[in-house]
Amino acid sequence: MKILLIGATGTIGAAVAQALGTRHQVLSASHSHSGLNVDLADPASIKQLFAQVGRVDALVCTAGQAAFQPLFALSDADFALGLNNKLMGQVNLVRFGVEAVADGGSFTLTSGILSRQPMTGGAAVSLVNAGLEGFVRGAALELPRGRRINVVAPGWVRETLITMQMDPAPGVPAAQVAQTYVRAVEGHMTGQVLDVIAGAG
Amino acid sequence: MKILLIGATGTIGAAVAQALGTRHQVLSASHSHSGLNVDLADPASIKQLFAQVGRVDALVCTAGQAAFQPLFALSDADFALGLNNKLMGQVNLVRFGVEAVADGGSFTLTSGILSRQPMTGGAAVSLVNAGLEGFVRGAALELPRGRRINVVAPGWVRETLITMQMDPAPGVPAAQVAQTYVRAVEGHMTGQVLDVIAGAG
Repeated sequence: MKILLIGATGTIGAAVAQALGTRHQVLSASHSHSGLNVDLADPASIKQLFAQVGRVDALVCTAGQAAFQPLFALSDADFALGLNNKLMGQVNLVRFGVEAVADGGSFTLTSGILSRQPMTGGAAVSLVNAGLEGFVRGAALELPRGRRINVVAPGWVRETLITMQMDPAPGVPAAQVAQTYVRAVEGHMTGQVLDVIAGAG
Repeated sequence: MKILLIGATGTIGAAVAQALGTRHQVLSASHSHSGLNVDLADPASIKQLFAQVGRVDALVCTAGQAAFQPLFALSDADFALGLNNKLMGQVNLVRFGVEAVADGGSFTLTSGILSRQPMTGGAAVSLVNAGLEGFVRGAALELPRGRRINVVAPGWVRETLITMQMDPAPGVPAAQVAQTYVRAVEGHMTGQVLDVIAGAG
């Protein structure tokens, strides 16, 4: 398969690129690195990316920003960041990319476990993640000609915790998270929220 | 209790006003009718409402607009309507109203069953409803001094189906939906998504 991967330079994205790259052609896009560029918050930039890339068999997005802050410290701009970038950015990948993905192809997006397992400081992230999961359940019913859509909801990633100088124990290695994306791309499911479940094989 | 009800003139809102009014003082607000006015999409209007009303023991919102359209017919403006009105409008009731609600008081918001039971044409509504439910799970962890927050997720309302000249059979009478709001206001739960469950008592 020819797979467009957005967010390829992030911790999860790099692991997904490596996992998919063993048997597929991966086109890597990111916000700020060399290669294909895209700004999720800018619809014109998304449209331009698809014009550049042409037809692909699958799209994977591991990018998207949202603000993690105590609820009453979140500004209007903090909420807007999550809505415009991680939420509508990924929604717009589907709206503007549906014809760029081949019949029978797939979209695999990224939310996060805060959608259903909240924590202090995460209200805006929970909103964005849950909203995206709702969208995916609905969009799966309307994608034309066999296209599928799923969303992976990662929890803590081990490498991220190490970078943040936090206890890495609760984290899952990015390579294990990546396997959930591989299953979404290579499998047959649609409309699903995919948690990173140990032993899912 | 003194309860601020936003959306009091809608089908569900009128039933909630009647149910709560039997033993509480209900202050009714709506977008377009006489009495207290508020435009959920306008943060300044929300702040003005709280300045007018002063302290209440509970806030209930049964208002909020979002666009129901086939996924690929939804415009940028259609998505923005749901995000600015039903989603951020209700989020802003919490952000700007937290000090207007007494210690130990409650917020009861409205999503809808499309958050988890999607249907064709409902992708933007699913996004908005699920996003609000995620927000409520997160916000419940951070509301100060015993304030609670829940969200009711109604399905089809019988009276609405009749108005739309659709088969009323799958609908639940608004008076029954209203009892779920009453339980949210008078009960003790927080952070919950409340479906309208037959026989919940």
